[in-house]
Amino acid sequence: MAKYLSVHKKYIGNMNKRNVLNCIRENQPINRSAIAQMVGLSTPAVMAITEELLKMKIICSAGKGGSGVGKHPELLSVRGDHFRYIGVDVGRVNSRVVITGQDGEILASSKCPTKGIEEPLHYLDSLSEQIKRTIKQTDIDWETIVGVCVAMPGLIEEETGTVIFSPDFGWKDIPLQKLMQERLEPLQVMVENANRAQARWETRPERKNKESTIFCIGLGYGIGSAIISNGELYYGSSGTSGEIGHIIVNPNGAVCLCGNNGCLEAVASGRAIAEQARQIVKFGHDTILCRLCGGDIESITAKMVFEAAALQDEVAIKLIDQAAKYIGVALATAINMLDPDTIYLCGGMMKNGDDFLERIKKYTRERQMHLAGRHVVICRGSRNDLNVACGATLMIQDLGWKFEALSFLY
Amino acid sequence: MAKYLSVHKKYIGNMNKRNVLNCIRENQPINRSAIAQMVGLSTPAVMAITEELLKMKIICSAGKGGSGVGKHPELLSVRGDHFRYIGVDVGRVNSRVVITGQDGEILASSKCPTKGIEEPLHYLDSLSEQIKRTIKQTDIDWETIVGVCVAMPGLIEEETGTVIFSPDFGWKDIPLQKLMQERLEPLQVMVENANRAQARWETRPERKNKESTIFCIGLGYGIGSAIISNGELYYGSSGTSGEIGHIIVNPNGAVCLCGNNGCLEAVASGRAIAEQARQIVKFGHDTILCRLCGGDIESITAKMVFEAAALQDEVAIKLIDQAAKYIGVALATAINMLDPDTIYLCGGMMKNGDDFLERIKKYTRERQMHLAGRHVVICRGSRNDLNVACGATLMIQDLGWKFEALSFLY
Repeated sequence: MAKYLSVHKKYIGNMNKRNVLNCIRENQPINRSAIAQMVGLSTPAVMAITEELLKMKIICSAGKGGSGVGKHPELLSVRGDHFRYIGVDVGRVNSRVVITGQDGEILASSKCPTKGIEEPLHYLDSLSEQIKRTIKQTDIDWETIVGVCVAMPGLIEEETGTVIFSPDFGWKDIPLQKLMQERLEPLQVMVENANRAQARWETRPERKNKESTIFCIGLGYGIGSAIISNGELYYGSSGTSGEIGHIIVNPNGAVCLCGNNGCLEAVASGRAIAEQARQIVKFGHDTILCRLCGGDIESITAKMVFEAAALQDEVAIKLIDQAAKYIGVALATAINMLDPDTIYLCGGMMKNGDDFLERIKKYTRERQMHLAGRHVVICRGSRNDLNVACGATLMIQDLGWKFEALSFLY
Repeated sequence: MAKYLSVHKKYIGNMNKRNVLNCIRENQPINRSAIAQMVGLSTPAVMAITEELLKMKIICSAGKGGSGVGKHPELLSVRGDHFRYIGVDVGRVNSRVVITGQDGEILASSKCPTKGIEEPLHYLDSLSEQIKRTIKQTDIDWETIVGVCVAMPGLIEEETGTVIFSPDFGWKDIPLQKLMQERLEPLQVMVENANRAQARWETRPERKNKESTIFCIGLGYGIGSAIISNGELYYGSSGTSGEIGHIIVNPNGAVCLCGNNGCLEAVASGRAIAEQARQIVKFGHDTILCRLCGGDIESITAKMVFEAAALQDEVAIKLIDQAAKYIGVALATAINMLDPDTIYLCGGMMKNGDDFLERIKKYTRERQMHLAGRHVVICRGSRNDLNVACGATLMIQDLGWKFEALSFLY
């Protein structure tokens, strides 16, 4: 399965320098003649390029290599302290920014409630300010920032970074990449689907397993997913694969924000659970939720419903059980169709106890075809709040070395 | 996405001879030094092997190659008349056998109603007799038969060719490969899922497009599918991917042969349509079906329902529309999740006019997520009755050259 990121193709420029740099990054520490062999250049050509990179402090000496008698050539490494990556998680509840270094270490992060999305331009103004404030928290030089990856839920056009449609945000045809680029000049901006950024993060130890299919599902305010196939993100022919939140789990079910009805997201997302809880409380049912929300019914969140369920509140347990049932139907569908190796369940709804996970597993097993998907493992993704943003920084790393983000170096 | 056929690995034997033969087959006509370069052998080694293959009449001279002055080396080709492949389509309604030659030309075929499947061993006896009779129709030598591929609906264990579970046949844990091997000694037998054989056939011109995802759905007595990813069949972690017939399109829907309820197959397959039609006729509804079945309600088939619909019978149109609606929900699910390049609709139900296809397309577009899967093409597969069996012969071709099927040559 194909259609890997084709974004930024136009930026391919000084291939030799970039190939040498990539080769060092991927094989460090490495000597010059090995580089020459791997990238298909002459040793003198590699010597000239590495000389330049050393002068620019992008790479450094890493001692002498080899063993036995004879010459021990100098080894080269990329300077771990040079590059910075910015990942932005535009969640429906919170907007998070993270800045990482070469080895993925977090140098700074910030979190703001996501507000004012009805006016995309104003929201993007405040998001840009948040990013700039986060950069200021550190003493890093803007020149060292390879790029910014903005991850958000919805359908993204790969080539332009335009938000084609995001039901959760009510956005259609917003040229997000262009708008953020204008606000963050001269930084390079890319836009990705949040579930793909999450999947990139969740599967980082497994990317070496080229023979596996991994399904990474985000259960939060909305529901989405990403597919990792043979170690690469799978996009699909229109770049819109993974929309498990909008598969129909009940053809006569509730109307969804996407305009369709019976979607998984309409009956089992954090938004749907909170909405159902509000309705029930309004009808005067006896539930701990009345107390938890302090009388302000509109303030009820999915998080409160999970808290109430943990306190054995029957209404809350029913709501959560119903959501787990529908999620089980959707996972059974994914298993019957794709028979993946692993399904990671991530997102806000998975930050609660094991009860919800166990219910989902039980209903999935009940609804998947008898004896199909026998080897599928269903497990929880990591619960760190910064996963999506960190995944976004990895996507910059994947791309940044190859493209214009490095053009200031040449 | 991975997990390609791993069956028959144990048979890898005389690699050099097989590599040379494969190299000639894939690059014919080709000269000896080009073969040597491609398979990584010395030219004298290649000369010895090709001498042997020429003597055995497996390959032949194909004239002189090259242009300009100098030596024009002899070109070699595989003899198109040497090998035979047997494909068997174990359908729930008919069992078909086809024998093809090197270039896919059909040398013989046969069709028998599939009967007596309640006694698998007896059924396999009669299937073997059918295969032997079909071989006898031709004057081919058994020694030239590379192998037999039996394609049937259900979950197949790749390594052993065991039918783990076939709801349509009511079979569980039937060691089909072993049982057929015993009956067809000394032929080599492999077992595949029928939808994969169909997909192998449907996508033969596209197998060169390594960048596409193709979904091939069989709509017949049962409903199944196969996924072609990057030019290769996709199996999944348990080898059970593609079970679209058993995804749940209505959580409260009818009970399915698989034991679950609300499956697509339970509400929209040929079997389901026929069953619903029988119920309606029994209840005394006014429909052309009463006439078409000649008063024998139990003899009503899905084919009759399609005929009645073509005659504008309202009951029949309703039944078919209902099936198209559910198939649309399932296709929308496939599109939202996988966003494939092409969806081929194949199988008995697609052998009717365009009305059914158009209804399916309409409902799919209605139920898929707004603006997702914009580039997905939905079209009809070829309508030839022998497609599954012919696809099965291709699977022998894919494997046969590499493995024990050729051991009689050495």
